Amino acid sequence: MGIDGYLGWPLSLYLAGRGHEVGGADAFLRRKWVSEIGSQSAIPIKNMTERRKAFKDVFGKKLWFRRGNLRDYPFVCECFRDFKPDAIVHLGEMPSAPYSMIDAEHCNFTMVNNLVGTLNILHAMREICPEAHLIKLGTMGEYGTPKIDIPEGFFTIEYRGRRDTLPFPRQAGSWYHLTKVHDSNNLMFACKVWDLTATDIQQGPVFGTRIMAMGDDERLFTRFDFDECFGTCLNRYCAEAVIGHPLTPFGKGFQKRGFLPLKDSIQCFTLAIEKPPQNGEYRTLNQFEGIYSVTELAKKIKKVGKGIGLNVDIRNLENPRKEMEKHYYNPDHQNLLDLGYEPSHDTENTIKEILIDLMKYKERILKEALIPSIRWDGTRRKMDYIKK
Amino acid sequence: MGIDGYLGWPLSLYLAGRGHEVGGADAFLRRKWVSEIGSQSAIPIKNMTERRKAFKDVFGKKLWFRRGNLRDYPFVCECFRDFKPDAIVHLGEMPSAPYSMIDAEHCNFTMVNNLVGTLNILHAMREICPEAHLIKLGTMGEYGTPKIDIPEGFFTIEYRGRRDTLPFPRQAGSWYHLTKVHDSNNLMFACKVWDLTATDIQQGPVFGTRIMAMGDDERLFTRFDFDECFGTCLNRYCAEAVIGHPLTPFGKGFQKRGFLPLKDSIQCFTLAIEKPPQNGEYRTLNQFEGIYSVTELAKKIKKVGKGIGLNVDIRNLENPRKEMEKHYYNPDHQNLLDLGYEPSHDTENTIKEILIDLMKYKERILKEALIPSIRWDGTRRKMDYIKK
Repeated sequence: MGIDGYLGWPLSLYLAGRGHEVGGADAFLRRKWVSEIGSQSAIPIKNMTERRKAFKDVFGKKLWFRRGNLRDYPFVCECFRDFKPDAIVHLGEMPSAPYSMIDAEHCNFTMVNNLVGTLNILHAMREICPEAHLIKLGTMGEYGTPKIDIPEGFFTIEYRGRRDTLPFPRQAGSWYHLTKVHDSNNLMFACKVWDLTATDIQQGPVFGTRIMAMGDDERLFTRFDFDECFGTCLNRYCAEAVIGHPLTPFGKGFQKRGFLPLKDSIQCFTLAIEKPPQNGEYRTLNQFEGIYSVTELAKKIKKVGKGIGLNVDIRNLENPRKEMEKHYYNPDHQNLLDLGYEPSHDTENTIKEILIDLMKYKERILKEALIPSIRWDGTRRKMDYIKK
Repeated sequence: MGIDGYLGWPLSLYLAGRGHEVGGADAFLRRKWVSEIGSQSAIPIKNMTERRKAFKDVFGKKLWFRRGNLRDYPFVCECFRDFKPDAIVHLGEMPSAPYSMIDAEHCNFTMVNNLVGTLNILHAMREICPEAHLIKLGTMGEYGTPKIDIPEGFFTIEYRGRRDTLPFPRQAGSWYHLTKVHDSNNLMFACKVWDLTATDIQQGPVFGTRIMAMGDDERLFTRFDFDECFGTCLNRYCAEAVIGHPLTPFGKGFQKRGFLPLKDSIQCFTLAIEKPPQNGEYRTLNQFEGIYSVTELAKKIKKVGKGIGLNVDIRNLENPRKEMEKHYYNPDHQNLLDLGYEPSHDTENTIKEILIDLMKYKERILKEALIPSIRWDGTRRKMDYIKK
């Protein structure tokens, strides 16, 4: 679900390369949203007809595909009846925090789109393929930044002399992140009442332009967003570096998150698919490679850029968000390591690859789209640089 | 919001009686849902035109009212612009767990209706009346039945040697209950980013037919539902007793909940309104009078019924829900006591009052509507009695 997206497309290629039978559905909403906010993918991507032709050329088999909306329950049922999935990877949600914060309309759209899509998948699984394994994309942002360690989904605590194992409290920082919290709660309930099997992936921001399975076939490339809504911070900094724009951490820039390269993300999804939990189990995996502050990442990009002739400054912007800018952050991610995840530990080379790939398309990187204007307080104006 | 409902109507009367200026909005959806599932209010209620006329007769002033849907953002904005509320009491949600469990369509409707309504109120408050105090009706069912004590919204815990105060984990037992969990998370976030002021009321099941402010004026009576969707357990048992039907706890019948009489509920809402939290505070109140198992309540009704000539058995039904039937349950409710709540501690007299009130309308209590058929596993059939 969401096969046309940044992660969905490369995951399909990778799984096909490993001999899996792959099918996908998409309503092409991501393309529409990015264009709605006046931006585009830095790397040009083919339409689905061309993508399917390339897939056939490379893998020697047809890519099963249905165009449709996950909010449409009969469509979801038809997909499951026709394709008969063993595993369902749900990447079909609206993934932008700023987009969800624009106004009441965008907030409501995000809420309804994400929740109803996931609920339709759950109901269709119950009705049609209750034995299938759902791999659902959530976000590390569901947890927020508590003052204690972040376990994977659940923790055992003592309170007033009694013990229980409970869902770890979520403190999300945008309407978008809240939809993922709501999804997690809904998914946990569906597994409990209908004995469905699910892996809830709490993923950090992903960066990168490519995976091996693409080779140098441009028809297989995936999208790359740099705008204030759909570009996550490391990718956006790389786009800035390529056009000689200062790198722009928000606020103090000490915010820490768990990041991972695209190839690690695809590796982790594949592990989750190939090593499912017990039947009827609801499992949470925290999915990231390492923890970095946004300033550390900006500095890495500055350094790598310098090595290939790109000289850029780092200039902090006013923070359009309401978030902690200096905080404790210590999330677990042992579950994926136990499944066999081998972290690439190769951030600088991945950054170099991104910068080199983007240089070919630098005229497609729109400066106006880089600087945020959507503010968490409900007003809207372009952010200024912070005076030193 | 939801002035035409079981709680909304008596709360309006009570507040008007205390000299508050009261206004309300409603889309009359509760009347539609109850009729959709083939039931009706045991106590006949007037339409809003007649209710407003009665209100005028009794209180000597007009009741401000707008008919409209909370899912309609411009409507919510218009209400706030026109009425200029100091406090907004949000009772305008779809309140039935079984109704939300019927199928994908009813699940999605419940999710969208409840979440979008609340989000529209939050956005409209930000835009129009950020100083107003929102009193939002949630449910004790948000917490589920953990093996530890249930605090009021938040708890301070130690985990791996560090401490934090976090939202208490929610483990709701139906799509409806989950909408309330999602609302709580959304509300908490809105208070954080927009400095809104809110009281989130986690209320237990309410029982009762009347409050003092109604007197014996039938035009002021509130609805009374007994059906499998909208009748909560104590009210439904009373309806059963009145028509000589066995009282029907689900499963083993040891499920414990925090219950409260209608008059206590109205008293508590009024305390929350008249004693608001600090500006920008998000406050949770657990709202119930006492904790009872459903079998204890059935036994009380049997006993009180006997005293007024109603002889009924208790016969347990198969449980259509998936829930713990024997469990630890120890929720706090000190916050309301600290605000001055005086619990009525008068369950048996309230039951007697309900039974006597209902006897007048016993021909309106439909036997077919009493026995549940909506099962948590997604199938549907009338529940059988459990063989002893």
